Amino acid sequence: MAVLDNIRVVLVEPIFGGNIGSVCRVINNNDITDLAIVKPRPTTDWDDARKLACNAKDQLDARKEFNTLAEAIADCTVVAATSARTGFYRDTAYTPREFSPIALESAKDHKIALVFGREDKGLHNEELALCTHIIQIPSSKRYTSLNLSHAVMLCCHELFTASETFQPSEEKADEAGSELRERMFATWREMMIKTEFTHEQKLEHMMMGLRRIFSRGKLTVPDVKILMGLAKQSIWVSNQWKKAEKHD
Amino acid sequence: MAVLDNIRVVLVEPIFGGNIGSVCRVINNNDITDLAIVKPRPTTDWDDARKLACNAKDQLDARKEFNTLAEAIADCTVVAATSARTGFYRDTAYTPREFSPIALESAKDHKIALVFGREDKGLHNEELALCTHIIQIPSSKRYTSLNLSHAVMLCCHELFTASETFQPSEEKADEAGSELRERMFATWREMMIKTEFTHEQKLEHMMMGLRRIFSRGKLTVPDVKILMGLAKQSIWVSNQWKKAEKHD
Repeated sequence: MAVLDNIRVVLVEPIFGGNIGSVCRVINNNDITDLAIVKPRPTTDWDDARKLACNAKDQLDARKEFNTLAEAIADCTVVAATSARTGFYRDTAYTPREFSPIALESAKDHKIALVFGREDKGLHNEELALCTHIIQIPSSKRYTSLNLSHAVMLCCHELFTASETFQPSEEKADEAGSELRERMFATWREMMIKTEFTHEQKLEHMMMGLRRIFSRGKLTVPDVKILMGLAKQSIWVSNQWKKAEKHD
Repeated sequence: MAVLDNIRVVLVEPIFGGNIGSVCRVINNNDITDLAIVKPRPTTDWDDARKLACNAKDQLDARKEFNTLAEAIADCTVVAATSARTGFYRDTAYTPREFSPIALESAKDHKIALVFGREDKGLHNEELALCTHIIQIPSSKRYTSLNLSHAVMLCCHELFTASETFQPSEEKADEAGSELRERMFATWREMMIKTEFTHEQKLEHMMMGLRRIFSRGKLTVPDVKILMGLAKQSIWVSNQWKKAEKHD
C-alpha cells in the first residue's frame, strides 16, 4: 500500500531504547517503514532497543537520524504532533481516527509525518509550531499519560485500518511542503515586525495564531505564493515608508 | 462509566513481568480496573512489572490471580479471546472495533472478559473453547505478531472510545459569522490595493484565492481579528508612505 510508505514516524529525543525498539515493531505491525529519530541521545540503550524490536531489527537498522525536527520533516506536507497537554493552541486537536483520512489523503502523493515528543517532556512549543495538526489520544482523565510505543501504536493502527478502505480523491494544485511553508511564515513574521503590527512580546503568540489558521486546510504551492507575495509587498511598502520619512 | 468497570482483562500465563506492568498502565489509560492473571509464573520479574506500570502500581497490586481460565471468567457473560492465528473456529473473528458495541451492550449489566494468551504460544484450544467471541487485530501480513501490551491497548482503547466517556476538547472561541468575515475580506481587498500588490484585473482572482484559503477550516472571532488587524496595519503603513512621499 503506497500510502503507508509515505508515512514517517518521527521520535524526538526519545529517552528509552526499549521504546525505540517497541516502536520499530509497532510500525512494522502496521506496514509503515519510515522511522526518523531527532537528536538521538548518547545514553540510549541500543541493546534494549534490539531486544524489544523482536523481528523488526531491520527496521531499527534502517532508521534515519536528524539533528532537528525541521530537518526530519522538511519534505512532509501534513505534520501531526501528538500532545497530551491542552492549552497554547492545543485546543483544536484531532483524535487519531479523525486525523487518519486527512493524513491518507495527503499521503497519496506526499510524505507526511507523525511526530512524538520526549517521554517526560513531550514537544517544545517551537517544535509544535512546525506541525500542521495536533492529535490528542482519547484516554482516562485519571491517567492520561500513555507509554510512547502505545501512543505510536494507536496512531499507526488507525492509519493502517483506514488505509484498507481508503479511496483517494482527485487533487489539482500541488500541496506545499514544510520548507516552503516555513519560508512563508518567516516572511509573515517579518511583515508583522516591519509594519509595527504588534509588540515584540506578543509576536510569537500572533504567529501561533496564524499557524493554526493556515493549517486548518491543505495549503497548495500557489496558495503559499499568494500569501508570501502579499507579505513581501507589505514589507516593501514599509521599507518605502521608512525611506520616504528619512528624506523628510 | 459503569460499563468500563464491568470489563475484565485476563492475561493467561504471561511470560514477561514488563508486559504485565505495561498492561496495568494501559488499562488505567482506558478507565478499566479489573485485571486477572491466570497461572502466574514463578519466574515472573515483578520488579520489571512495577517499573513499567509507572503510575499504575496500585493496579498491579490489585490484580487477581487464578489457577485456570475457567475460574477467571466464571462470572462473565461475553468472553472474548484475541488470536493472531486463523483456523479452529478462528475464522469468524471480529475486529476490536466490531466487537466493542457487543461488549458494551453486555457490560451494561454484566461482567465481560477480554482474554489474552501467552506471548509465545497464545491460547490453547481448550481455553479458546471457553470464549464466546474471537477478536483478530488487523495488522500487516508481513508481521502479524503484536506485543502483548499493544494488543491489550488496541482492544481497551476501542472499548474506551466506544463507551463515549471521553469528552474531546473543543474550540472555545466563537465562530465568525459571514458579516464579520466579509468585513475582513473587504479590509484585505483594500490592503491589496493600497500596498499595490496586484493589478486591478488580477484583484478579484487573488481575492478568490484568499477566500478559498480562509474557508478551509472554521474561522473564529479572534482569528478574524488577527487577520483584520494585520491588513489594517498594512493599509496604515501604505498611507504613511504616501504622505511621506508627498512631503518629499
